[in-house]
Amino acid sequence: MPLRFTKMHGLGNDFVVLDGVRERIDLTPALAARLADRRFGIGCDQVLLVEPPQLPETDFHYRIFNADGSEVEQCGNGARCFARFVRDTGLTDKAEIPVGTAAGPLLLKVQPDGQVSVDMGVPKLAPAEIPFVAERQAPHYTLDVDDGAVAIAAVSMGNPHAVLQVANIDRAPVTELGPRIECHARFPNRTNVGFVQIQDRGRVRLRVWERGTGETLACGTGACAAAVAGHLWGELDPDVAVTLPGGTLVIHWQGLGKPVQMTGPATRVFDGEIDL
Amino acid sequence: MPLRFTKMHGLGNDFVVLDGVRERIDLTPALAARLADRRFGIGCDQVLLVEPPQLPETDFHYRIFNADGSEVEQCGNGARCFARFVRDTGLTDKAEIPVGTAAGPLLLKVQPDGQVSVDMGVPKLAPAEIPFVAERQAPHYTLDVDDGAVAIAAVSMGNPHAVLQVANIDRAPVTELGPRIECHARFPNRTNVGFVQIQDRGRVRLRVWERGTGETLACGTGACAAAVAGHLWGELDPDVAVTLPGGTLVIHWQGLGKPVQMTGPATRVFDGEIDL
Repeated sequence: MPLRFTKMHGLGNDFVVLDGVRERIDLTPALAARLADRRFGIGCDQVLLVEPPQLPETDFHYRIFNADGSEVEQCGNGARCFARFVRDTGLTDKAEIPVGTAAGPLLLKVQPDGQVSVDMGVPKLAPAEIPFVAERQAPHYTLDVDDGAVAIAAVSMGNPHAVLQVANIDRAPVTELGPRIECHARFPNRTNVGFVQIQDRGRVRLRVWERGTGETLACGTGACAAAVAGHLWGELDPDVAVTLPGGTLVIHWQGLGKPVQMTGPATRVFDGEIDL
Repeated sequence: MPLRFTKMHGLGNDFVVLDGVRERIDLTPALAARLADRRFGIGCDQVLLVEPPQLPETDFHYRIFNADGSEVEQCGNGARCFARFVRDTGLTDKAEIPVGTAAGPLLLKVQPDGQVSVDMGVPKLAPAEIPFVAERQAPHYTLDVDDGAVAIAAVSMGNPHAVLQVANIDRAPVTELGPRIECHARFPNRTNVGFVQIQDRGRVRLRVWERGTGETLACGTGACAAAVAGHLWGELDPDVAVTLPGGTLVIHWQGLGKPVQMTGPATRVFDGEIDL
């Protein structure tokens, strides 16, 4: 059975995008893992499946699967690729697109220059909502790791994030600490882990260890979580340019109770058809 | 301008295959590198360009480019993918396909089970033909590397190969010694480097550090060079099953002056179209 797909990326975070509106696609974890394999399949960080709407007042639904077949609640780069996909393939002609995800509804805005702004929702900071094990909500938590302790912020952008401040991003212990914090007992659903270097009140550099994937070129929800964390710490203004290894996202957040706005590029690379 | 392509692999050594017979394609090194990029392009070890014949008594010509844009003389996995490509796309209906490459003509045979046998030509052992700097031809050479010395065979299968025997393939120093030998002064055109564990007279295990690429799942010419080297050392029979990380190739060689026959699989994964 031939399966049509589009290969896209947001700042180098790459996706195989499937049109489950025009075609019926039974995307099992095993099939997602097979499609994501870079030598024996198509190759991507994540598989994004666009589906008919499931939530009220949305036009579409989408689901995202990691390369290991596990399903992700939310992904900012994926949201931007979704918006460009449904516009470019003619599934919608709206510039503002309401969509449902496993983490709830999102509103996506395609800008005249093709960049996409995503309303990423209100960050959840209550430990039980992240989920993170802590007695009460705080801007900093002390996390025991191996023989030492690290200071983190804990933020949910639909998916859990631990954020650590570092003095120099190039020497951040991403591959050493990332997997240890990802699987830390105080994050019952595991967590993404961001390492952020604050340059000034409007600019940060960020590297992210993504849950189930490892270090990536750019994590959209990670950029949001880092901006929120820096704001909570009193070190960042509402508009922050977050530079990741794959490029730059602009994050806007006005503070507690407000939604996070993320703006950045999404690029279609090629279309293809694979026999299953 | 849209460019059509087919993604294929031979034992996990993967190729973007371009039809330069039906379409005119100006494949620069920069374009090859862009296509080979796994996140911002299509993604592959090598780009294979099928062209009209250039040599007498051949039906096609093909060229192979590494992911760094450099051109390769020959590649056994690429030869098998070429044969399946011209058969599957209807460019030929022959079961035996004569083709020209930068390393000279090849004869490819598509077997009834879809595996492809490649006449890889007569291995060149004279040092000047490899090219390798040595006073005279020998089954073993001693190569100075850093503070020590290693024993190697030197074989050209259209491209140069150094072959080292190891006791345990899983602990072979592929990523340590591979790049040092690749760029050794005695290999003026650099070299591929094979690490071979001889299990019995008909079975070996092999890992290959490929020139310009690094360690790969399967190197076809490397499998031939390893079988030739083991035969020269008096340790292998004419038929050898060579198990690489990506799968198994069967190599047949009757000795000095005879051509090497290689038989193995080639798999089409998907077809696509990319805007340039």
